[in-house]
This record gives sequence, structure tokens and C-alpha cells, in this order.
Amino acid sequence: MSCPTSLRNAQDMSSARARTTMDVAAVRSFLYTNQHEWEIHQNLVQIMEADPVFDKSRRPFMSRSERYVRAVAMASRAYELKEIHHWSDAEAARVIKLIDEPIPMTLHAVAFEPVINLQGSPEFLRTWGKVIAQRGILGCYLQTELGHGTNVAALETIATYIPENKEFEIHSPTLSSTKWWIGALGKTATHGVVQAKLILPSGEDMGPHLFFIQLRSLEDHRVLPGIAIGDIGPKAMHGLAGTDNGFARFNRVRIPRENMLSKFAQVTEDGKYVKPPHAKLSYGGMMYIRSSMVTGAGWTIARGITVAIRYTTVRRQGGKGSDGLEHQVISYPSVHVRLLPALSRAYVYILLGRNLTDAFSELSSRLASGDTSLLAEMHATTSGLKVLVTTTAIQDLETARRSMGGHGFSEFAGVGRMYADYVPSATFEGDNFVLDQQVVRAALKAYQKLAKSGDTTLTPSTHYLRLLLEPQLDIGGGLPLTWEDAQTSIRLLELRAALTVKSRAIHQDAPDASMDQRASKAVTEAFVAVQVGKIIQSLPKTFGPRETEVLTKLCLLYLLTAVEGGLVDILSFRLLPQSVVSTTSGCDDPTRTLRMAIKQLCQEILPEAIGLTDAFGLSEWELDSALGVADGRVYEALYARVQTEPLNATEITEAYTTHIKPMLTRGQKLAGSTKSKL
Amino acid sequence: MSCPTSLRNAQDMSSARARTTMDVAAVRSFLYTNQHEWEIHQNLVQIMEADPVFDKSRRPFMSRSERYVRAVAMASRAYELKEIHHWSDAEAARVIKLIDEPIPMTLHAVAFEPVINLQGSPEFLRTWGKVIAQRGILGCYLQTELGHGTNVAALETIATYIPENKEFEIHSPTLSSTKWWIGALGKTATHGVVQAKLILPSGEDMGPHLFFIQLRSLEDHRVLPGIAIGDIGPKAMHGLAGTDNGFARFNRVRIPRENMLSKFAQVTEDGKYVKPPHAKLSYGGMMYIRSSMVTGAGWTIARGITVAIRYTTVRRQGGKGSDGLEHQVISYPSVHVRLLPALSRAYVYILLGRNLTDAFSELSSRLASGDTSLLAEMHATTSGLKVLVTTTAIQDLETARRSMGGHGFSEFAGVGRMYADYVPSATFEGDNFVLDQQVVRAALKAYQKLAKSGDTTLTPSTHYLRLLLEPQLDIGGGLPLTWEDAQTSIRLLELRAALTVKSRAIHQDAPDASMDQRASKAVTEAFVAVQVGKIIQSLPKTFGPRETEVLTKLCLLYLLTAVEGGLVDILSFRLLPQSVVSTTSGCDDPTRTLRMAIKQLCQEILPEAIGLTDAFGLSEWELDSALGVADGRVYEALYARVQTEPLNATEITEAYTTHIKPMLTRGQKLAGSTKSKL
Repeated sequence: MSCPTSLRNAQDMSSARARTTMDVAAVRSFLYTNQHEWEIHQNLVQIMEADPVFDKSRRPFMSRSERYVRAVAMASRAYELKEIHHWSDAEAARVIKLIDEPIPMTLHAVAFEPVINLQGSPEFLRTWGKVIAQRGILGCYLQTELGHGTNVAALETIATYIPENKEFEIHSPTLSSTKWWIGALGKTATHGVVQAKLILPSGEDMGPHLFFIQLRSLEDHRVLPGIAIGDIGPKAMHGLAGTDNGFARFNRVRIPRENMLSKFAQVTEDGKYVKPPHAKLSYGGMMYIRSSMVTGAGWTIARGITVAIRYTTVRRQGGKGSDGLEHQVISYPSVHVRLLPALSRAYVYILLGRNLTDAFSELSSRLASGDTSLLAEMHATTSGLKVLVTTTAIQDLETARRSMGGHGFSEFAGVGRMYADYVPSATFEGDNFVLDQQVVRAALKAYQKLAKSGDTTLTPSTHYLRLLLEPQLDIGGGLPLTWEDAQTSIRLLELRAALTVKSRAIHQDAPDASMDQRASKAVTEAFVAVQVGKIIQSLPKTFGPRETEVLTKLCLLYLLTAVEGGLVDILSFRLLPQSVVSTTSGCDDPTRTLRMAIKQLCQEILPEAIGLTDAFGLSEWELDSALGVADGRVYEALYARVQTEPLNATEITEAYTTHIKPMLTRGQKLAGSTKSKL
Repeated sequence: MSCPTSLRNAQDMSSARARTTMDVAAVRSFLYTNQHEWEIHQNLVQIMEADPVFDKSRRPFMSRSERYVRAVAMASRAYELKEIHHWSDAEAARVIKLIDEPIPMTLHAVAFEPVINLQGSPEFLRTWGKVIAQRGILGCYLQTELGHGTNVAALETIATYIPENKEFEIHSPTLSSTKWWIGALGKTATHGVVQAKLILPSGEDMGPHLFFIQLRSLEDHRVLPGIAIGDIGPKAMHGLAGTDNGFARFNRVRIPRENMLSKFAQVTEDGKYVKPPHAKLSYGGMMYIRSSMVTGAGWTIARGITVAIRYTTVRRQGGKGSDGLEHQVISYPSVHVRLLPALSRAYVYILLGRNLTDAFSELSSRLASGDTSLLAEMHATTSGLKVLVTTTAIQDLETARRSMGGHGFSEFAGVGRMYADYVPSATFEGDNFVLDQQVVRAALKAYQKLAKSGDTTLTPSTHYLRLLLEPQLDIGGGLPLTWEDAQTSIRLLELRAALTVKSRAIHQDAPDASMDQRASKAVTEAFVAVQVGKIIQSLPKTFGPRETEVLTKLCLLYLLTAVEGGLVDILSFRLLPQSVVSTTSGCDDPTRTLRMAIKQLCQEILPEAIGLTDAFGLSEWELDSALGVADGRVYEALYARVQTEPLNATEITEAYTTHIKPMLTRGQKLAGSTKSKL
């Protein structure tokens, strides 16, 4: 008999791990910012994985109602543990993040509390800040309505100021004005911030403003009079199962004047409107959420790709190699050419997101001092990045899942669950197709400024437009270029952006139907490419030569596959001369030299693949995947999980007596058979 | 107050419906083959939607165990109704198909019964045929194992012939040889066909053969001795929830010699092997399943796109038009340029699949008379089509879902459910990435034959290779071409296929890593393009001028978007001369004229979109989508569905006392607040 599969699985994994030449711990520290942060992280993970409240083993079999109760239980336990272990607020926030699914209290932390801190007046924060920070009340943020989402200006909920009582009256005038999709509203939140059109006593409509409102009693959690609240039901593909996205209708509900969040705009006691200093000041929160989505997308891909790379390392299928064994699935170029670029995106987004968060901190401090010069640019950049990273991470998760063949479709593989929870990011926080238009609008504005006035004060986000001022729009200026040089890709991606925006401007009156999508992608990818170039330059400062080499290759793979993804534009703009070569395949059709360079790079990165995924530092508890087990014993893990399926609790299904037996008996009668004959 | 939204929804839908200029009933009859078939269909739907067993209203809230019981109940009811209404076998099969999710008995009909009919000897069929046809026993088809799927040759289960007893011994030698993923095995099937390596008394391994085996007692449904069976647990994204995909291990289980399916290969009583006349005869079943997947993909897209087109027709969002209302979402070019090509693919796949089923019938009758000349070609073609249509339909469902913005992520939208049930088609019945290689292998064989011997007897699937014999490889031979002429796209797609295969042959020793995928797609799309050309030619024979015009435009949109999807290859082969123009946008960059032709075509098709989706004849019960309701009152429908969510059954969640209240109390204490102060 042949070597037992589970032993071979384990051998395959340990040989793959042994092939890593990098210092995995060094890379891991870097991904977690530094060794200290990694140790804090690891300590928290160990506490959580040992706590039965955070156990995941029954999750796949739970109903949505059970998932909701579990989600709330986890939050409650997290804050209990915070007291027990004297965690800092940052540590507690990290613990909430380590719960690998959105839970109602996430909305308190990422939507309710920030909007209040950003837009609440100092007086308001004095009254409410502390109890909100300590979750003495639980909040939600009521923006989207049944009839309107992305187009905030068209929201229908109204807040009419009544000077006699110094109150606002919150009202839902139509079915379509029902607040909808609001996380934590369905069953949890005691309070909320409502986005509503401010109506002055004069009858004037001042557009959307924010109002703080109590939803449920703090005595017994009953919904307050005049408000109708409920959960909006299950989400597609069983995603976000633990979150009580809810709806709410307001029937002329009164709130005191102080409940308007009035750090910027205000209504005086007698009903006069005081304008905010800058129309877009309220964009801050949204930009913060969007920029944190970049790192989030990186870690999302990291989880999916770790599972896929581990499983395809031990799965053997197809032709046999010189060792007499079938090939490891990851060894097929058609497989690793899909997985390794996704791995490179995980790394790039994690590092890029960190830089953005820094930029956001700068923006915040400038905003605080009244400087709004960076606002428009940050808005366009974060919009474009949100589109790029969410679209890509969704694809990469599905690529990871499909690379695992049939078993990837098991719930126990875990990647389908990640996908279902992540896929709404394409349509929430701004629908990606709508955001594309905003990116293009900003790019066109910069282009027009450049074209009309020759103004060359380009910002980092529009820096690619400088290329339009160069005498010759080619990639090398006569120099020989190779795909192994990151600058080739960076320049190509910047040229593509510049020419796409120019072309979009020329055809201003008659763009084709997908042009904004292509232009937004081109602009954002040019921005990312430049950042990747900077990341490559910074690597030797942090790492030894071996890690620097591997991570540089990973960054280069990111760039080359971005170019490959943009080939239609690049070719139709004739940006790809015959002179781009690959040092490994020589001169050829430039699309072929590009693809051969990608193939070669993948083969060079392949021996490091397990090390690069180990460096994400994801524990078994965090991944919760039978196919992503670190020791490679995937078949044993899958077999063990399957035994816990509730249908296997009895040998004979309850459906036998009621449905199967009658069907068999009827069939046997019709066939003229008897059981004894069969 | 403005016009109530639900009324406006209804008005928007009825005006859109009124804009249809086609005879919707005529198109519908055509899609259902003829008016008689449509009436049969409609009659069956009406019976089912009135029957509480087929009610779908509680489905979103059911656990998997409940979904399984419901699935079996539906099957049992279907066969009960067959007797009551004296349905034909074809009508009963249609009813099973009308259940809009895979159920265990589907596997009896599509996998178990066909393989027995195809491979069972006449004696075997005399004994078992009737009781199988009447479902006096319920079957499953045990091929895939825990360790092997697509690579059938490497399956580990063994069937050793014991001449002393004239029996086979079925055995699972390893953990990885456990049969896995087998539909209807987990809790339902009484019998199965096992794929196992046949071992002769001589010890010789004859490779995979098929064996009929009883799994459960017909007395009490207990699993028979020596067999371990269970359900493999939930599937990703809650897909295929009603199906009991199962596992089985065999511990030296004996079956009589007659249980080998031996129409082709046989083992004599004394253990000698009798070879089948043709090695690939057993491919028949797989090809039938794959060709039926083409029509299946068409109807799958049809369901998703009907929902999306209806919803985006009544959803209004964004800037306001001359009527003072926000624009209908479908009126945005960036939206309809995604939805209408998907609609065109639904039509093309439905019609193409019908032609294939005809071709398959011819193949079957030729095979029956020993003629295997069409076999290899049909195998390659159906493999390529399976890859193309499943990959595309998965994408189109997700495109449909995302086009609906946030609400598309509600379970009640219905499209997420369709996606979760359909997405495994990319990895089952042959992993798409593995099938690609088979398509390319067949194409290379045809190319080598042509290149070496100049043999020009090309089959329909390799007809595009004739272009390599032409003196000049351009698309027009000097003639002026327009995108409005279908032949432009067809020839471009054939040229792309020819040059891709040639390039693949030239780089035989060093293909790039994604080349097989591109080549398979190019070859298959060339085949489909030619078929679409034939469909266009046949339209006037069936339809009046108005329907012919609309359907021709739909076919043309299919072709143009196929060209757009292949632009990288088309551009890198320099197949796109400046001389391709669009009659509407004149001469320009040819990628722009192509995209403008697509935009123009979409605008022409747009007024017919509701008519074209109505022609699918899908009832509310069939679609089961709050956003896809025919009358357009989507907000009312969504609001009504949401009220049925179990979490809404009580005002205060059970989690309040156990988790929420303690969290609030703790928070208030920490903040130094008291409830009375808040």
C-alpha cells in the first residue's frame, strides 16, 4: 500500500516550508508594523482562541438568529475581557477586528462613534462622548433608505425645526424613505445618528444633516413610540449573518435641538441656519473608512490566498513527476500564475494602506486647523482606491476558492464564507460604478487645468499627467527597457492613465459606455504603481538582502500583472514598442515577453510561497479552514469537520418515513417489483 | 407630497413594457420551442405554484437540515402529482427541473440513470431498468474521491474480481479514496454506481470501471454492512443546501459479477478482461451533461438578468431628467452596457444549446451503430463550451446582482441564491482550467494535421483553421467593413482563434502560463460566433420583421462584446485595421468605434429590454425575487418579505437579557452615567 495520504500531505507541507529562504519572522513583524505589535496581536489571539465564546466549530450549522446571538455574545465577552485583562482601547478594538465577521458593535465603532466625534459640537461631546466611548449606549448610523443609497442628496427623511419647542421633528414621509440596511439597527442599537433633510421654519430645505436620536428604551430595550424598527432579513450567500441590518420608520418623532450634530452647520434657537465653513468637511469620515478598506482588502486577500496556497501545495493531481507522484497542484503554471499575483496584491495593499492611514492623519490635523487643500484630492484618491481594492479582493477570493477545485466549494474550506462577507464591499460605502465617475471628474478637472493654463502644480494623485507635457509619449525615450525593471511598468501605467484621461477629455461629449470605469482604473493604478515603486526603494532599509529580493519580486509581479490587466488600453494607445524585452525570453511579441516575464517571476517566487503566507501570521482559529491547516493534513481536517454535520447525527433521516419510503414504495409498485425481489 | 413611490414603480414598469415593439408571445414560444411546449410549461408552473409543498416563502430562513427535508418532500410530491395528473415522463422531468434548486433526485435522473442506460448490458437493464425508471430504488453516481476529482485515472477505489465466488470486492484502501461530493449519497440513495479500478485475478489493474452497488436497505434505509456513509456538510455561500452531497467508504464489500456495468468492457466468469470497442465510448454521458449545460447557462442568466433589468427599470437614482424625476438606473450607459450583453448571452446560449442537443442525438445514433468519428470533436467542443458558458454565466449573475447596488445583496433579491447554486459549475463536471487543456490539445492536433499534410478536411469545430491557408490574414480582404455587419466580428473571432492556436503551436515548448486558457476561449468563441451567424440567418424564417430586427441586434451585441472581450489578442495580432468603422460614429481608433457601436446597439435594444425579459416567461414563483416582480412594485415587495424574518417575531431579542443589557450596564458604570441621566 502506498504512503498514507495524510503523511504525504504533511511531508509536502514541511518540505515546502523548508524551501523558504527568507526570514519569515522578520517579514511578519514588518506586516504587523513591528515585533511588539505582532506580540500583542498574538497574545490577543491566544486568549480568544482559548475562549469558548469565540469558538467557530458550530458556526457553519447555525441559523441567522443563532448567528446574531453569537455575534452579540462575542462583543459582550470582548468588553468583559477588556476589563479582566486591562486592555487598552486599541487592544479592545483589535479584538473586535479579530472576530472574523462583521458584528453589530462594529458599526458602533466604525460608523456611529466616528461620525459623532467628527460632527458633534463640543457641548454635545461633553454630554455623550464618554458614555458612547464606553458603550453605555449602543449606536448605529442611519443614512441609506429603501429608495436611495449613494445619492445622499435625494434622501427623503425630513427633520423639521419647530422653534416653539426648540425641537426637531424626524419623519419618514414615504415607504421609500424607510431607513434600510442600517447595521445594528434591527435588534441592537439604543441610539442612532439619522441623516435627514433639514427643513427650516421658513420651509426651506437645507439638504441632508445629521441628528442624534434615541431608538430603544434603556430600561427594557423596547422600541420608542413613533418608531417602527425591524431586521431586513438574510443577506445573499449567507453573508454578514451575525449583523442585524435593519429598517426604521419615524412617525413625527420629536428630538431636542441639541441633538443636531452641529460642529459645522447649526440651527439657532429661533430657526436660522448657520452654514458650515466648507461644504465637504463631512467627507472626512467616509474617507477614513475608505482608506482603511485598502489595508482591509490586503488582509482579506491574505486570508483567502493562504488557504489556497497551502491546499494547492499538498493537493496532488494530474500527471506524475520524476518522484512517481502526481504533481503538486500549485506547481502548474496555470495555477500559480493565478495565485501568486493575488499574493502580491495582499502584500501591496497592506503596505499601501498603512501609508494612506498616515496621509489621513495629516489630513485630519490640517482640517482641524481649517486647511482643506488636501481634501478634494484625498477624496478622489480614496474613492478610486476603494473601487480598485474591493473589486480586486473580491476577484482574488474567488480565484483562491476556484483554484482549489471541487473542495473549494465546501463551507469548511472557509473561502466561500470570506467571499460572502466581503462581496458587499463592491456596493456599500459608495457603489463602485458611481465612485468611478467621481474619480474621473477629479482627473478631468486636473487635466483641463493643465491643458488650459499649463499649470503644472500636480498633486501626487495627478502626477501622471506631467507625461502629457513631454515631447514624446513613449515608454523609454529610446532607452532599452526590460520587464525586470519596475520603472518600465510604472511608466507604462502612468502613460496609460495620462492618455486615457486625455482621450476621455477629447470625447467629453460622447464617451463610450465603459470609459469612466477604464479611466478610473487607469488613474488609480498609476497612483498605486508609483507607491509600489517607493515601497521597492524602501525595502533595503528594513530588510536583509534575501527578504529584499523576494519582496521586490513580489512588488514587480504586482506591477507586471497590473500592466497585463491594462493591455487593451496599452495596445490601443500603441504604448508597447517591440523594444521591451525580458531578460529571460529575449525579444518577441511584447505581450509574450510580458507574459513570459510573469511566468518566470512566478517560478522564482514559488519556493517562497509558503513562507510568504506563513508571514501573515494567521492562526488556525483565525483562518477556520480545513484546507488551510498549517500542517498540510487537509484530508484529515476535512474528514473531521464533516463528522460534525447535524445531518450525520442520525443514521436514518427523518425524511425517510415521510417522503423517501413512500416514493420508493410507489416506484416499486409501478415497476411491478417487490422489495424481496430487489 | 410626491407621488407614492410604489405607484411610480408600477408606472415605470408599465411604460417600459408598453415600449416593447416585438410580439413578446411569439418570442416566448420560440424560446420554449413552440406554443404547445410553452402551454405545457405554464400549466405545470401553475400547478406547482399553487401547491404548498413548493412554497418558497420560508426557504430563506431554513437550516440546511430543513432544506434537505424540503427538497425530498418536493421530489416525492412531484412524483405523486405525476400519477394524479397522468403526466408523461418528460412532463415529470420538467417539473423536477422547475424546482429552482438542485435536489437529491436530480442526481438519480441526470447521473445515475443515464450512466446505467448507457453502460449497462441488455441483461442488466432487463433486471433493473424499470425499477430505476420508476424510482423504486434511488441512485447516485460515485466517482469523485476525497483525493481525486478531475483526474479519473488516478481514482483509488478498487474492485477486485474473485473468480471463486464470481464476485467483485469493492474497497476503499486509503482515507483519500473515500468517495466524496456524491450528490444524494449522504442521506438518500439506496443504490449507486461506483467508479473503481478493476483488478483482475492476475493482479492486473485495468483502470476505472463502473459497478452497481446497493448502499442502504430497502427495508429500513439502514446503511449496509461494510459501508460508512455520511453527508459532507454545508456548501460555500449556502449553495446546494437541499442536496445531500455525501461521502462513502467501502470495507471489502462484495457484489455479484453481474453488477459490473458491462455493455462495453466485460470480465468473464473466469476473470478474463474483454476490451471495449472504443476507449472513449464512456464519454457519452459526460458530453450529454456538458451540452445540456449550455441551455442551462442560458436560462440561469435569463433568471438573473430578468431580475436586474426589472429592478433597474423602476429604481431611480442620481441626476434628474426633464421630467423632474431622477433617472431610471437602467438608462445609465454604464449600467445597461453591462446588463444588455448578459441578456444577449442568455438568448444565444438557449438557442445554441438547442442545436447542440440535436447534434448530440445524432452522435448517439451514430455511436449506437459503431461510428465514433464525431466523438473526439464533440468531446472537445462540449468541453470548451462548458468552460465558456459556466464562466460567463457566473460572471453575468454577479454582474446582475451588483447592478442592483445595495439591495442586490439582500437574500430577497434572489440573485445571490442563484449565484451560490450555480457557481460550483466552474469546478464540477470537469474543472474549467483542466478542460481548457483538452480543448487546446484537440485544436493543436487539428493544426498539426493541417500544417503537416495540408489536410483541409476541417470539422465544424476546427473550421476557423482554414483562414491560415488564406494568402492574407486580415479581416476584410480590402473590403470596407463595419461593426454593424455580423461577419466582421465572426471573421475577427475566427482569425483570433486561428492565430492563437498557431502561436500556441509555435511556442509549444514554452507557452506562457495563461495561454491555454486564452486559446481555449478563442477556439470556443470562434465556434459560437459561427453558430450565432447561423442563428441570425434563420431568424426571418421564424419571425416577422420587427422580432427579426430586435433579435438580430441582440445577436450582434453578443458578437461585438465577444470581440471586445478578446481585444488583447486581437490587438496584439494586429487584426484590427483602422478601416473598421461604425456607421454611427465614423472613423476613429477602432477600439473606440467598436465600443461606440456597442453603446449605440445597447441604446437601440434598451426599449425592448422589458419585452425581451418578459419573453422568458418566468413567473413570480419561478423567480422568487422581491426585486424582480413583474409589476415593478419592488419596495412594497421587499418590505413585505422583510416582515417575515424570524428575528422580527419578537420586539426584544433574546440576546438583550443575556448580552446586550450587561454590556450597556457595564458601559454606563464605566462612563459614570446612570440610566436616569441618559
